[in-house]
Order: sequence, then structure tokens, then C-alpha cells
Amino acid sequence: MGYNKITPELLAAFTEIVGDKFIITSGEEMERYCHDETEDLRYYPEVVAKPNTPEQVSTLLKLCNDNLIPVTPRGAGTGLSGGALPILGGLLISMERFNNIIQIDEDNLQATVEPGVITEVFIDAAAEKGLLYPVDPASKGSCFIGGNVSHGSGGPRVVKYGTIREYILNLQVVLPNGEILWTGANTLKYASGYNLTQLFIGSEGTFGIVTKIVVKLVPKPDHNVLMLASFGTNEAACGAVSAIFRAGVVPSALEFMERRGVEWVIEHDGIVFDLKDDIKAFLLIEIDGNNMDTIFDAAEKVNAVLEEFECKDVLFADTSAQKEELWKMRRTMAESVKSNSVYKEEDTVVPRAALPKLINGIKEVGSRYGFQSVCYGHAGDGNLHVNIIKGDMSDEDWNTKLKGGIREIFELTVALGGTISGEHGIGLVQKEFMPLKYSEVHLNLMRGIKAVFDPNGIMNPGKIF
Amino acid sequence: MGYNKITPELLAAFTEIVGDKFIITSGEEMERYCHDETEDLRYYPEVVAKPNTPEQVSTLLKLCNDNLIPVTPRGAGTGLSGGALPILGGLLISMERFNNIIQIDEDNLQATVEPGVITEVFIDAAAEKGLLYPVDPASKGSCFIGGNVSHGSGGPRVVKYGTIREYILNLQVVLPNGEILWTGANTLKYASGYNLTQLFIGSEGTFGIVTKIVVKLVPKPDHNVLMLASFGTNEAACGAVSAIFRAGVVPSALEFMERRGVEWVIEHDGIVFDLKDDIKAFLLIEIDGNNMDTIFDAAEKVNAVLEEFECKDVLFADTSAQKEELWKMRRTMAESVKSNSVYKEEDTVVPRAALPKLINGIKEVGSRYGFQSVCYGHAGDGNLHVNIIKGDMSDEDWNTKLKGGIREIFELTVALGGTISGEHGIGLVQKEFMPLKYSEVHLNLMRGIKAVFDPNGIMNPGKIF
Repeated sequence: MGYNKITPELLAAFTEIVGDKFIITSGEEMERYCHDETEDLRYYPEVVAKPNTPEQVSTLLKLCNDNLIPVTPRGAGTGLSGGALPILGGLLISMERFNNIIQIDEDNLQATVEPGVITEVFIDAAAEKGLLYPVDPASKGSCFIGGNVSHGSGGPRVVKYGTIREYILNLQVVLPNGEILWTGANTLKYASGYNLTQLFIGSEGTFGIVTKIVVKLVPKPDHNVLMLASFGTNEAACGAVSAIFRAGVVPSALEFMERRGVEWVIEHDGIVFDLKDDIKAFLLIEIDGNNMDTIFDAAEKVNAVLEEFECKDVLFADTSAQKEELWKMRRTMAESVKSNSVYKEEDTVVPRAALPKLINGIKEVGSRYGFQSVCYGHAGDGNLHVNIIKGDMSDEDWNTKLKGGIREIFELTVALGGTISGEHGIGLVQKEFMPLKYSEVHLNLMRGIKAVFDPNGIMNPGKIF
Repeated sequence: MGYNKITPELLAAFTEIVGDKFIITSGEEMERYCHDETEDLRYYPEVVAKPNTPEQVSTLLKLCNDNLIPVTPRGAGTGLSGGALPILGGLLISMERFNNIIQIDEDNLQATVEPGVITEVFIDAAAEKGLLYPVDPASKGSCFIGGNVSHGSGGPRVVKYGTIREYILNLQVVLPNGEILWTGANTLKYASGYNLTQLFIGSEGTFGIVTKIVVKLVPKPDHNVLMLASFGTNEAACGAVSAIFRAGVVPSALEFMERRGVEWVIEHDGIVFDLKDDIKAFLLIEIDGNNMDTIFDAAEKVNAVLEEFECKDVLFADTSAQKEELWKMRRTMAESVKSNSVYKEEDTVVPRAALPKLINGIKEVGSRYGFQSVCYGHAGDGNLHVNIIKGDMSDEDWNTKLKGGIREIFELTVALGGTISGEHGIGLVQKEFMPLKYSEVHLNLMRGIKAVFDPNGIMNPGKIF
């Protein structure tokens, strides 16, 4: 695809659309927009524009479409697969000024929000009305809900409440040709032709730009308990995961953490925790509900399972502060790993009973390729984040040999019935692994669908495929 | 699109693929395949084939694709929008021999089933293992799970457990060119390129044919209560619906029934029920869970709401037999209406708080156009089935004037933020109303996606668009 550069005339047109204040072409400010949270990758757009109405987005896209200018939509830049990197330059459209919660409709348990609302801001606003928006990725304090939609993001509550797919009812989107449309209806059910809402979720900005989001909410449960279970092996911890569901309990979170990850949060985040020598892995288990007796019943069932899997110790969080501390341990793990070493993060997902095989396989691949890894994640969903640590690996091995190891991890993931990303998306850095999962026929279907929305290929080019 | 007729040579080839016994070209047996449950519409295919392997389906489709033969996939034929009607003749592929439950995987709470499994057979098989498959349309005793997937079917439990979209993890599909592929992975999360699984759900056989289905299961709750609440007006009953959620309760079913519907099940199904004169509408409310105290707490909250909305009476079902009887009342309503009069069924869905406006609007349209209606359905989802009764309307009015009334009902539905089908699909009979909901731009996106999967347009032609 031959793209064009942004001419002075186009820049003038962009400036007229969004206003002087909301155009960046160089300087200090540009540094914010050349990277996301994916490794240390940097790509500079030619121009950053910050529109704040669907009509502005529409005019910008139409201009870029007519002039074959690559467009990269950007949320908060917290992505882990390079989806927001403007690898071909062009126009970067930052959605940060779309930051209004337009309505929380208590009669229908729905809300309409703009894509640049910070996820946690929206979660808190819903909670104030006694409502739950259960999609809370680790980056909830900084990520945007629009980015969550575009990546099909998850978080710890998926295990009980389902993925973001179950909470997005309708999307207002702008297509590359400037058309503004709603993908569906504000209803809990929808059997009226192809479901474009579901198709847009996880499309990583390659079809168009989301400008409004209608979200489903649920009543917020009154109570929860949080327990941290310690195990002597990764296998025992992972084995307990599917047994908990078989015992009839659906926890509201079921997170796995490897010892190394906990060591690093203790070192880096000042978390106080007495880490015993014989502990190799943890499960963080939350059970919520409206009745403490029911919650305790479920916790007892979980306890029985934990004993079966030779759990060494179970710590109950007694106070909100203790709960906060345990959650902090889990949520800051990515940051801790990052500040400790150069690393790469892979987002494996398998049927949950395959977790022990997955984690053993990862360690085995690591021992052959000479890398260490820290694994943690949403074990209840079979979703394991694999942080591969550079440590004292040579730059050469890191830049060349490692790829073979990652490939083997993904091959194992797919062989176990899984896929190469559970919630981070494909973006830039995982696209080379797509053929491990998909046949050429399958990839061509995806390419064909892309071309329906974006025949000129201007939307986030170089991503996914 | 110019289609061809099935030649003797093609018929011989079809016969070789599936075997003599599984080809029908005429006679008594053909009568089963010329209709579904949509009004009294009848269309005959040229040939019916009953394959039982994906490879047979693949060879059949490839032949039809190469020879431009229209193909209509058929499940159990219980559809209400004419999706399984072979309106252009051609080959009808009946999936009835794909009737194996391949595996119920208790470790992963997943199952793999063939599309011709009767929904209730699968629900029962899961229940035997203590697992719940909560997608139970009124026709569960006869419909196929494959048809449910193709129509995005629902049922009463959607209100708590979500639609079929949340229970379908992966699909094996055969494309018109004969390619067999899996749309996704057997995982609870999936952020690996465009979600073709979600795209296939609700595509009504217009992309290809589903040959295997991987389903998510959840632990089956131990207990439930069922209550029937009676109201003096439709509005009061519908008004209570959203108030129940606002009170923090998510029932496992929340069904609305109009008086007329109840009268007819009493007349036609021999159901014994003391229907008081001042009762105009009912809510059937089920609450499930693992702990009776929690369930009773929730039931009390519901009761308080019902009082607020001037509920006249609440009947608690004390025994399984009573529960069965109340559910029978709701489930047989469609059949009762059908046996009472010529009718048309529309499948409106709106945000749930808009239900009172919807039902009042339907009655108002009816009074202007001179038709009566019986409304019932999944009020908790805002999904109201509108049965329009011919009664003593003249044939001419029924066949010509009525359409304007239906159009007005759908216009109202869309104006209230809803859409023209919640769970029945578009098929043949609703396609003329698609432009009420969708712009030409939107419809062209759908058409473009269709062409990616089925460039020759052989799959279920004349449906949806």
C-alpha cells in the first residue's frame, strides 16, 4: 500500500478542524505519543491531533482516507502489544479529550461513555450509584475504556463476570470514509443481522475509531472475601484452579502469582510480606456476593480444594486495607518486573485445566533457551502472562535466539487448545506469530473483513497482520 | 445473482457423498423440509441432503459453490423468521445427523457438541454432571443447538446468565469453498485478531455451515424459587421489571405474560389456574443460587418492589410440580396462540425501562390498525414477543394493511433505543424491516462481510438482506 506524507496543506486542514492547541508536530510534547507500554519501542507520528467530537474525527479520517495518510488511533497508551505505535508515521489521533461520562442510566443499568474516560474513573462513578462495571485490567488507573474495547481487555473479574464483550452493548464509530454510525442497539439481546459491535471489539483500531460506548452495568455485590493461598509448586497452585470450579464455586477473581513476581513486588514496591522459603506460588482468590453466609460457604468449599492440592497456608484479608495490599501485590507485578529487567511479556491463554502443562512447558522452554520467566495472571480464565526476563542474557541472544523460545511457547499454547493472546491483543509485536494459530485461509478472511471497513488500509496499518 | 438448478449429474454426486438413504428429492418425506415454524410459509428445496461429517458438508458445499446452487442449512426447523426456508430451491442441508455430544469436559467446564443436538438433550446431559448450560429457548425440547448459534438464540435465563454469545467459545465451520476451519480457540478469553466466532453467531447460515460447537458451562446452582406476580395493568408489571434490578436483584428469569396469553394456555393446554377478573398481566420470577437464605433475601427485596408497583398477588411455587406447571404456562404460550388464530410474531427488544412505553405503543398501534395482540417474553432483557392475532380481521387487511402496523411497531422499538429482533433473527420475514434500523452504509458493511465468506452468494440466499 503506498501511503503519502502529511503535506503543509493537510496539516493546515487538520489544524482548522481541531484547533491550534490540539495539534502537535514536534518538541517535548511529541515524546508522549511515540511509545506505549510495549517494551521500549518508539515510533514518531508526523502529526498528533486531539479532536473532541465525532464530527471532528469524521473530517480528519475522511481527509486521511482521500489522501492515503496512515492513521493510528491512541487511547491512554497503556497497551502491551504495540497497537498504538504509529509505525508508518502519519496522523496519530489521540482520544484523550473524549473523556466524558455522558450518562449513567440507573433505570436500565446502562451507561454511555466516551472512549477517553479512564477505566477506574468510570468504575468509581458506577460504584457511587451502587453499580458494578467489572472490567478492570491491572492498568485500570490509567488505561482508557476505549482502548479496553479495542483490545478486548479483561482483568481479574472476567472469571465470574465475563469479558468486556458482555458489557459493551453499542458503539458509535467513525469509518475511514467519514461515516458515523452506531454498530448495534442499546439492548441486552440483539439478533438483527451481523453483530458489528462484537466485531469492533478487539479490532485494535483497524476498522475505524470508536467515539461513544454504551455499557451494561450490574448491581454491585455488597460483600467479598479475599484470600491468599500459598503452594510449594507452580503445578499444585495451577492444579487447584480448575478444581475450584469443579467444586461448584465461581470466584470473582482467581489470580496466580509465581514466587519470583512476589519477591520483586516486595523489593520494588515496599510491600511488607513474610515470604516463606518453601513457597513457590500463590493463588489470590476473591469471592463476592450479597450474603456473607453464602460467601463463607463458598470459601469453605475453596478451602477444602486448597487442602487437596497441598496448599501450605491461607491468609484471609480481614480489613479493606489488607485487601488493598494483596491486590496491590498482584496489580503492580508488571511494573515491578519492568523496573527490574529488560523483559518481554506474552499473553498466553489455554483451557484452564491445561495451566499446569502450560507453566511446566514454559519453564522447560526457558531452560533450553537460557531465559528466566515470571508468570502471573488470570488463572481462573486459563490466562497466564509470561514475563520473559533478559537478566544476564547477551544482547545477541536476546535479540535473535529468544524469538525461537517465544515461538515454542506459543506453539505449546496453541497445541493445548489455546491462543496467542487472551486480552492484550496482537498489535505490532505478536503479528509474526499469527500464522502459528491461523491458516492462510483464516487470515485471508480477517484481511477481507478489514478491507470492507477500510478499503484503503489507512486505519492502524501494520497491526494484527 | 444467477443460480443454477440441480442437474441429474449433481444429484448423483450428492448421493455419492452422503449415501442413497440420506438424499430426498420428493414425496412425503420432503414435506418436513419445506417449512419451519414461521407462520404458514412453504418453499420446497430441489434436494435434501443429510450429511454427517464435516468432510461430507465440505464436499457438498464445494460442489454447490462451483455450480452456483443455492444452499439452505437447516437445524430442527423451529425458527420463527423463516431462516431455514429454501426460498430459491437448490440444496437443503439438514444437520439432523450431527447429533452427538462429543465430550463434556468437567475439568474445563466445556463441552464439544455437534450442531444437530437437541438443546434440552444437551442441557440434561450437562445437568447430570452438575453443570449448567443456561441457553434454553422455549423450543428447547425440539430445537437444535446449531440453530440456536445461528440465530443468537436466548431464552429466559439470559437475564442472569447472558446470551448464547457468552457460552460459545469456538466453532468448527465449513465455508462455501469447502474449507474447514475453527473460528477461535477453546478459551474463555480471546484477543487474537478479529473474533470470527462472534461473527458466526447470529449469521443465520449465510457464511457457511457450523459442524462442531465448543460450549462453556458453569456450575449448576443448587436451589431456586419461582414466583408468579399478578398485576392490574401491563404498565405496572413492566414498570416493576427495571425496579427489581435497581433493588440489586438479578433474577435467573423474569418473564412477562399478558392476560390474554394466560387465558389461552388455560383453554388450550388444560392448565388449571384461577384467573381473577382484575388481573391484566403477570411476571414470572425465578431466583437461583446455592444458598436458600440468600435466595429468600433476594425474594424479599423483589416482594418489596412488587408491592410498590401495586402487585395484586404473589404465588410461590412450593413444589417442583408447581414450578413445572408455571413454566409450562409460559413455554406453551406461543403454541396456544398459534392454535387459536392465524398470527404473526414479532420479536421486539428495547432497553428494559422502556417496556411500559413499548407495550402501550403496541396496543395503540393495534387499535389504529384494528388488530389485537398478545405480548409475552423475556421482560428482564427488555425482549417482548408480540403476537399479532388475525382474529376477525379480513384477509385483505391482514395481507396488506397490517404491514403498516408492524412497521410502526418496529419504528417505535428503534426509537426507544431497541432493535427489530432480540433472539429470533431476521431470516426471510423481517428483512424488509432492516432499513428501519440500519442505514444503507451499515447494510453495505454487512453485505461486504457476507461476500468475504461467500463470494458467490450461495449460502442461504435471500435471508437477512
